[in-house]
Amino acid sequence: MIQLPGVIKGAVEALTRLPGVGEKTAFRMVMNMTNWKASELISVGSALASLQNLKLCRDCGMFADDSLCSICQTENRKSLKTLCVVENASDLMAIEKSGHFKGVFHILGGVLNPLLGVGPDELKMDELREKIVKREIQEIILAVNPSVEGDATCSYLKSILPETVQVERIGFGVPIGGSLEYLDPMTITKALENRKRF
Amino acid sequence: MIQLPGVIKGAVEALTRLPGVGEKTAFRMVMNMTNWKASELISVGSALASLQNLKLCRDCGMFADDSLCSICQTENRKSLKTLCVVENASDLMAIEKSGHFKGVFHILGGVLNPLLGVGPDELKMDELREKIVKREIQEIILAVNPSVEGDATCSYLKSILPETVQVERIGFGVPIGGSLEYLDPMTITKALENRKRF
Repeated sequence: MIQLPGVIKGAVEALTRLPGVGEKTAFRMVMNMTNWKASELISVGSALASLQNLKLCRDCGMFADDSLCSICQTENRKSLKTLCVVENASDLMAIEKSGHFKGVFHILGGVLNPLLGVGPDELKMDELREKIVKREIQEIILAVNPSVEGDATCSYLKSILPETVQVERIGFGVPIGGSLEYLDPMTITKALENRKRF
Repeated sequence: MIQLPGVIKGAVEALTRLPGVGEKTAFRMVMNMTNWKASELISVGSALASLQNLKLCRDCGMFADDSLCSICQTENRKSLKTLCVVENASDLMAIEKSGHFKGVFHILGGVLNPLLGVGPDELKMDELREKIVKREIQEIILAVNPSVEGDATCSYLKSILPETVQVERIGFGVPIGGSLEYLDPMTITKALENRKRF
């Protein structure tokens, strides 16, 4: 087998660290990049390295350009007394896409997972409690994913939050466009439990 | 839709320049990278930017660490009077993988393609002719892919190369493990033409 230069091996190794990129894909990408101009290579390299400068919103934990993210900078959203708790930035963006929620968010940074050593101290739980008191939040929407860890996290949150706050969890059931035929029994069970008068 | 920081947009845009990476995939990659350490981001960024330092072998045009690639540095390969002409580095590597060819290579850098403005001057054709004379090459294997442009390139090469040199083209036919049932008529035609006494 031919001995390839170190720069090629290094670039292949770097790209395989990306999710979903195996050695063959990385190699194909690098072969393509060998035809690029130096300026293009530099711009891509520095764009990726620049991610180290990514700031997080000091209020909700979302990616931000400044100390506050674009949501927490919006006056009429901040003034609302409803707070939506999510696991991570991707979940926050999914909710934002729906355009239905008008309040502000709080990113936990994950869910409780004793097996992986994630306890309450590893998540932004104290910050949540402080924010609720400071902002006089009246309603909490737990938009935490339905899983054993997610359920446990919601139960724990409910137990530590002030009793004056109304705590709700997003609804579970049949997704729109979904077909009962292909759904798992757990989802069907939830959909039956969560039935509404029609 | 939420306004994302410039560094995220920049990283997504950079990754979409890679072959096979669309905006959704790039975004998923960047979301993953937001959990990386700064040192990891820098090392991946600089590994990609380092590709600009990639050198090409002054003899055959293959990627090289020094002025000569690992193949052209091998004494007993250089002394052989057989030269294999390929379109690009990937094709060269495919031949090297077979382990069957013991001579040296010459990378053309593509095939003739008037529609894309690729004429003889854009390819390493003069270098090939010079090399043949200087090294007293006796046999040329044209390992150019079978396509209209590849065929034209081979015909052109045959016409400009010294008549004393034996010019051959790699064989076309049914690939090993292939099934006649699924092969295109052109390949079957070639396989019939290229039949050998058994």
